[in-house]
Amino acid sequence: MTKRVAIIGAGPSGLAQLRAFQSAFEKGADPVELVCFEKQSDWGGQWNYTWRTGLDANGEPVHSSMYRYLWSNGPKECLEFADYSFEEHFGKPIASYPPRAVLWDYIKGRVEKSGVREHIRFNCPVRHVEYRESDATFLVTVQDHERDVVESEIFDHVVVASGHFSTPNVPEFEGFESFNGRILHAHDFRDALEFQGKHLLLVGSSYSAEDIGSQCYKYGARSITTSYRTRPMGFDWPENWEEKPLLKRVDGNTAYFADGSSKQVDAIILCTGYLHHFPFLPDTLRLQTNNRLWPLGLYRGVAWEANPGLFYLGMQDQWYTFNMFDAQAWYVRDIILGRIALPDYETMRADSQAWRRREEGLEDDEQMIRFQGDYVAGLIEATDYPSFDIEGVNRTFLEWEQHKHRDIMTFRDKSYPSLMTGTQAPAHHTRWLDAMDDSLEAFLDAPARRPTATPEKANG
Amino acid sequence: MTKRVAIIGAGPSGLAQLRAFQSAFEKGADPVELVCFEKQSDWGGQWNYTWRTGLDANGEPVHSSMYRYLWSNGPKECLEFADYSFEEHFGKPIASYPPRAVLWDYIKGRVEKSGVREHIRFNCPVRHVEYRESDATFLVTVQDHERDVVESEIFDHVVVASGHFSTPNVPEFEGFESFNGRILHAHDFRDALEFQGKHLLLVGSSYSAEDIGSQCYKYGARSITTSYRTRPMGFDWPENWEEKPLLKRVDGNTAYFADGSSKQVDAIILCTGYLHHFPFLPDTLRLQTNNRLWPLGLYRGVAWEANPGLFYLGMQDQWYTFNMFDAQAWYVRDIILGRIALPDYETMRADSQAWRRREEGLEDDEQMIRFQGDYVAGLIEATDYPSFDIEGVNRTFLEWEQHKHRDIMTFRDKSYPSLMTGTQAPAHHTRWLDAMDDSLEAFLDAPARRPTATPEKANG
Repeated sequence: MTKRVAIIGAGPSGLAQLRAFQSAFEKGADPVELVCFEKQSDWGGQWNYTWRTGLDANGEPVHSSMYRYLWSNGPKECLEFADYSFEEHFGKPIASYPPRAVLWDYIKGRVEKSGVREHIRFNCPVRHVEYRESDATFLVTVQDHERDVVESEIFDHVVVASGHFSTPNVPEFEGFESFNGRILHAHDFRDALEFQGKHLLLVGSSYSAEDIGSQCYKYGARSITTSYRTRPMGFDWPENWEEKPLLKRVDGNTAYFADGSSKQVDAIILCTGYLHHFPFLPDTLRLQTNNRLWPLGLYRGVAWEANPGLFYLGMQDQWYTFNMFDAQAWYVRDIILGRIALPDYETMRADSQAWRRREEGLEDDEQMIRFQGDYVAGLIEATDYPSFDIEGVNRTFLEWEQHKHRDIMTFRDKSYPSLMTGTQAPAHHTRWLDAMDDSLEAFLDAPARRPTATPEKANG
Repeated sequence: MTKRVAIIGAGPSGLAQLRAFQSAFEKGADPVELVCFEKQSDWGGQWNYTWRTGLDANGEPVHSSMYRYLWSNGPKECLEFADYSFEEHFGKPIASYPPRAVLWDYIKGRVEKSGVREHIRFNCPVRHVEYRESDATFLVTVQDHERDVVESEIFDHVVVASGHFSTPNVPEFEGFESFNGRILHAHDFRDALEFQGKHLLLVGSSYSAEDIGSQCYKYGARSITTSYRTRPMGFDWPENWEEKPLLKRVDGNTAYFADGSSKQVDAIILCTGYLHHFPFLPDTLRLQTNNRLWPLGLYRGVAWEANPGLFYLGMQDQWYTFNMFDAQAWYVRDIILGRIALPDYETMRADSQAWRRREEGLEDDEQMIRFQGDYVAGLIEATDYPSFDIEGVNRTFLEWEQHKHRDIMTFRDKSYPSLMTGTQAPAHHTRWLDAMDDSLEAFLDAPARRPTATPEKANG
């Protein structure tokens, strides 16, 4: 009998899973019935931008945390698919830091070409997954909002590819209840122009704070203050940007920090990370972890050790992204197709523990990058996913970090060679700081246009 | 064996259900085991204000749609509990239009007194309810965020009291994707001061548009534009407030309306209502309705005809609120206690159809108010809930409407006699338009203080 596989989510990971199977079918693999349940009305996961915040048109939590004018914050050369290069998709070499719409187009290009869309049911949040001991299957209950029905179906395997950058971690600080401005999590940030001319406080010191702050600076915020718990980001910020230690409380519109200093602010953006959140899973199947490079419980980072009929994709903290999801998806595919045999529980657990021990000893970014590179390399070796120059990707990550530390406002003007095609990316036609239009058309063709509502830069 | 009853939600309806049972136990009724699952960390439902928007600290959709400076938009005399008067709670008569904190205090007062809090499990969203034919019970699956476990328990009855003003109905209009200001639903509106000095567009013409607009006017918005689909609200608005027909599209920051006119706006608030949303219920148990006075499928407005072990509270569109929830809760209690026998399915259905036919013939507010008054009166007759002057409440609603139409900015300065105690409410110490402090303390004791960040009224 044909195996049935449920894939939860049609973002980069879920689409990688569909593409992995499609690629095997093309080469003659036995058929597997694939059903991908997607909560949103279109594919692309995070990359499917929406102006909505909070709950979507179906009353479901909005998935995407992306915002207008978001440009890749790492070189595209580090995330390129090994089986579908940027050059193949766009028909020409493009610059190294594309805006969101360009990356979305690239992700879609591969799956459109392989015709997997018919397997996806849109507007279908998964409500409940139940494992049935009696016949070792999974009962998956889904609400189909298009038909407004709740239905259950039986599957042999479930692949959880629902992401972990959608459910905000939202701490409370004293005085928030009576703060007279907007308080939002980065997840709900949409348009830097909303904060033009404002004094902005960003709580956090990771990618969200760095990038949302940079955007707001670029589009004319009056001042940026970022507040760190452990250590400052330490970049060479523009003059109207300062780093403060942890926020202690707000009183009216005054923010007070751990060093006793204070500042008047108009709005507060909590760049405080995301939760792994699986409201549709019972405890026996549910990954419980913070955001780290090696969550426990997943053999080779993907197979749920306690019940390896279930898989997770992309649940690690990420340097590697799209091509790591590919490596994982190809590996999961081969387990499901019976090409890779899983060892017994104890062996899986021991293997994961060994990775975890190594993860716990990592001391700097370089070691973390190489750790994840090694992980990806190991997966690729086990399948027919096209091999690529992992060491080259590692090196590109390290150069990127250097460029950021040299100048956080210009690093996106750099370019790198593709590890897939060898082609050196061209410089973009416009400096990132001057590129106000984030559309695909502006990026690919014309010199940058300014958006409709011309922003005025207060500084810079 | 002791019956087990699950109550979903500890807002006004769920608390009414707990109170109804408690009142019966005090009079010697046989024990029933009550478990109330509450998603939030405290009770009060909508009345439990939070600065949060979108998702809460547990990653669950924020329940409350209330905002700072919210004052009751109807006379408190229309919602007074028949078994616990405002005068009893506050120890003195208070004005007719209290702010949110005062009403929250009142709701809590009754249940604190009756000691029902021990039955409530906080931070426990219900994930899934399943009916088990074999023994006619309900399996209720809940995620307990405090212990981070997902657990299932068996109940004889389930009472759905999760409200229907929490899941926003969010339409899209052309151009929203590239609008350069904030777009939010009324559900996410928190503080009028965020919109001081702004040109504000509110889409909608019901209570949310009326009240959020009035607030933003009061706290200094530069202009208010409301956009209606069917007909204008028709109040005598202040000079900087205008009503427009339906929004057609936005382009940049310009909003275009159905009459061909346009306006520059800084922010858009969608006051477009709410969805009945029960992600935890299968189709066989799930109420599917728009917001109306007589949703079908509920005998006497509460018992799920297709499976009357399940009940719903407060699912109707509402003129009557707190005391209607009480009337419903007492009625549900008496069914569960075996004091009221339900007729067969066909009889229940015919009864509901008769109410629906009457509902469909209602032509104006007065008829709607009397319709709901008759419904409440019928429930109260059937239980020991203290009888009260329904016709007096109807009359108060009608006076309130007249006061609103006479002056939408001063109607909250009126006062009415209690239908429970007969006491005439005192005039408030401060006109609503001048009362900037919405705290319980300011309302009960001192003359109004101004909030920390002194708002400047642009008009008025």
